[in-house]
Amino acid sequence: MTKSVFYHAGCPVCISAEQDIVSLIGSAKVEIVHLGEQKNRIAEAEAKGVKSVPALLTPNGNVLHLNFGASMADVKG
Amino acid sequence: MTKSVFYHAGCPVCISAEQDIVSLIGSAKVEIVHLGEQKNRIAEAEAKGVKSVPALLTPNGNVLHLNFGASMADVKG
Repeated sequence: MTKSVFYHAGCPVCISAEQDIVSLIGSAKVEIVHLGEQKNRIAEAEAKGVKSVPALLTPNGNVLHLNFGASMADVKG
Repeated sequence: MTKSVFYHAGCPVCISAEQDIVSLIGSAKVEIVHLGEQKNRIAEAEAKGVKSVPALLTPNGNVLHLNFGASMADVKG
């Protein structure tokens, strides 16, 4: 596995994190998976160790769980 | 600001995250700050929005809080 996989669920906080991750790592190096739209990949994500979203699965198999301090504007958005 | 800043506190989980982040983003693009050793930078980190460590401050000013599901081995390590 040479690409990272960014799992999210479409919430505003997830989209913000997605933009940051794509900007930092480069879009060619990260696959974006929207678990709300690709429910068939939820089991795969869980099997890889994803406990919450947004999360980044690195090429070496580690899972980075990304938690913003979500603003109320994000929660309401 | 063109570099990201990775704030951590030296715990095993932080070091693991640091290695992942450096590997993903590239060491030239991220400054590593050990808040346990550089206590004078804690106020700066808090002012930037860091609520917990490890955390990554992106070039556009967002803070990504990274939470691993820390294993007991990590906690004991």
